[in-house]
Amino acid sequence: MRQMIDSIPNLPADFTLMMRYAMGWVDENDNPYQQTTGKRIRPLLLLLCADAAGGDWRKALPAAAAVEFLHNFSLIHDDIEDSSPTRHGRPTVWKLWGLANAINAGDALFTVSFYTLHRLTQSGLPLDRILMIWDVFNQTTIELTRGQHLDMRFEHQAEVSIDEYLSMIAGKSAALVAACARIGALIATSDLSTTENYAAYGLNLGIAFQIRDDILGIWGDPDVTGKSAATDILSRKKSLPVLYALERNDTLAQIYANDNLTDADVSEALAALEQAEARTYTEMYEQRYFEQALLAIQQANPKGEAAEWLMQLTRALFQRDR
Amino acid sequence: MRQMIDSIPNLPADFTLMMRYAMGWVDENDNPYQQTTGKRIRPLLLLLCADAAGGDWRKALPAAAAVEFLHNFSLIHDDIEDSSPTRHGRPTVWKLWGLANAINAGDALFTVSFYTLHRLTQSGLPLDRILMIWDVFNQTTIELTRGQHLDMRFEHQAEVSIDEYLSMIAGKSAALVAACARIGALIATSDLSTTENYAAYGLNLGIAFQIRDDILGIWGDPDVTGKSAATDILSRKKSLPVLYALERNDTLAQIYANDNLTDADVSEALAALEQAEARTYTEMYEQRYFEQALLAIQQANPKGEAAEWLMQLTRALFQRDR
Repeated sequence: MRQMIDSIPNLPADFTLMMRYAMGWVDENDNPYQQTTGKRIRPLLLLLCADAAGGDWRKALPAAAAVEFLHNFSLIHDDIEDSSPTRHGRPTVWKLWGLANAINAGDALFTVSFYTLHRLTQSGLPLDRILMIWDVFNQTTIELTRGQHLDMRFEHQAEVSIDEYLSMIAGKSAALVAACARIGALIATSDLSTTENYAAYGLNLGIAFQIRDDILGIWGDPDVTGKSAATDILSRKKSLPVLYALERNDTLAQIYANDNLTDADVSEALAALEQAEARTYTEMYEQRYFEQALLAIQQANPKGEAAEWLMQLTRALFQRDR
Repeated sequence: MRQMIDSIPNLPADFTLMMRYAMGWVDENDNPYQQTTGKRIRPLLLLLCADAAGGDWRKALPAAAAVEFLHNFSLIHDDIEDSSPTRHGRPTVWKLWGLANAINAGDALFTVSFYTLHRLTQSGLPLDRILMIWDVFNQTTIELTRGQHLDMRFEHQAEVSIDEYLSMIAGKSAALVAACARIGALIATSDLSTTENYAAYGLNLGIAFQIRDDILGIWGDPDVTGKSAATDILSRKKSLPVLYALERNDTLAQIYANDNLTDADVSEALAALEQAEARTYTEMYEQRYFEQALLAIQQANPKGEAAEWLMQLTRALFQRDR
C-alpha cells in the first residue's frame, strides 16, 4: 500500500503526508508511527475469500489495498462530519491540518483507492471480471454515502424505526464488508450463485459487526474498548438498543432530550435499557445476523485452509469485546 | 444525466436533492430550476473530440456525463474549502445543507461519476479501451486534488513561482479538460500518438482557459462577468498577473499584507499591475498556450463537422469576456 502512494507521480510530500498519517504509517511530523491503528480486517477478509473461493490471493492484492484505502478515506470524511477530534488515540486529520485540507486529503485517498484497484489490470484477471469488480466498488461507495446520509439525518429525525436503522448500517458499515467478500469471490470466479453467497456472508457479517459495536458502545468494558463507559449514551447515539428501548418506554426519550447528560442521566438511561430488555433483544439480533452469515458462507462452500481461517475470523468477530 | 442519478437504487430523495441542486436542475425545495448554471463545456468537448477522432459520439455519452458529474463534485468540495457562500448566483450546497451534508453529497456525486463512467460497458467499446478510460479518470482526479492542495498551500506560502503556479492550474483546472479531449479520442482509437495529441490540446486549452479567468478576475467587465470589479484583487488571490507583478515591484506585496483591502488599495494594486505590465505579460502567456492548443489539435488531424466545431469552440474560449 505504501508503494502505491509513492508510485503516483508528482504528489508533494506535504500532500501525501495527510494520507500516510491517516493510514497509520507516520505521525504528523512524518516520522514512522509504530503503534497499530486499524485492524485491517477488510483486506484480510477479501484475501481469505479469494483463496477460499479457489482464486489466487496474490491477484487480489490490489483490490485488498483498495478497500483499505476506501475505508480510510471514509474515516477522514466521517471524522469531519461527526466533528470527532481523535481516532485510535491520535488527533484526526482535520484537527491537525484543518477542514479544507482534510476534505481534499480524503478526496485524494478516495481516488488512490480507485487508482489502486485499477492495478488489477496487471494481475492477468479477465478484463470483464475487473470491470465487474469496479462496478461492485462503485455501488459500494454509493452505499457508504447513503448510509452516512441516513446516519446524519437520524440525529435530527424524531422517530427512527428499526428497519430504517438496519438499512442505514447496511450502507454505512456492512456494504464494504459485503464488497470485500464479493470481490474476493470475483477474483476466483464469475459464478453468480457463489459470488452472491459470499456477498450475503459479508453483508450479514457486517451488520452483525455493527450491532456488536452498538452493544460495546453501551456495555463495553472501558478498560478493554479504550472508550469511556456507556460512550454511545453520553453522545446520545441512536443505536439499536436505544431505538428498541425508545419504542418500549418514555424514560430514555426524556433523557435524550437534554443537551448534556449527567452521570445520573446515564445511570437512569442504563436502567431504562435494562427495563426494556434492550441488551437481550440486541444480542438476539446480533446472533441472528451472525447465523445468517455462517449459513451463507457454508452455502458458498469455501475450500482449504482459507475456509478454516474464515470461520475463525467470523467467530472471533462475534465474540470480540473491543 | 438525470436518468443516471434516478437509476441508482435506494437513494432517498432528500439525499439526491443536494446532488440535483448542485447540477443546476432544481432549486433547494426540489422545484425545477430554469436558469442556466454551468456551461457544460467539458462534456461538449469530450463528445466533439470523440466525433472528430472518428468515433461514435453516442458511445461517449456515459463518459461525457461522468466528467460533468466529476466537475460538479469538485465544485461542491471546493466551495466548502474556499468558504464560498454562492456559485452562479445561488447559495452553495454547504451554505444550504451544512458542512457535513455537503461533504457527503460531494462524495456521492464523485461516486456517481464513476458509476456513470462504468456504463461504457454497455456501449460495445472494447473492454481494454474502457479500462484505459477509467485509468485516465483516476489519474485526472488525483491531479484535481493535487492542484487543489497547491492552491490552498499557496495562500499561505510566502513566495510562489510562476512554474509552481502553472503546475497548480495544470492540476486544478487543465487536467479535467485534458481528460475530456483524451477520453474523447479514446472512444475512437487507442492509437497513442492521436490520443496524446488530443490530450496536449486539452491540457494547453485548459491552462489558457484558466489564464483567461485570471485576466477576467482582475480586468473583466463586472456587467459581463457578473462578478465585482477586480474581484481577485479583493480576495488577494495569487493569480498569474499578481505573481508576475509581485516579482517586479514591492507595492503589491505591501497591499496584499493587509487583511481587508479598501477601494484605494485596489486602485493602487491595479496601478502596480499596470506598472509591471502584468496584463501584457499574462495575455502573452494566454496566447502561447492557446497557440500550443491549436498546434496540438492540428496534429491530431480531426475530421468532419466536429473538427470545425472544435476550432470554433477553441477560438470562442480564447476571446470570451466572461
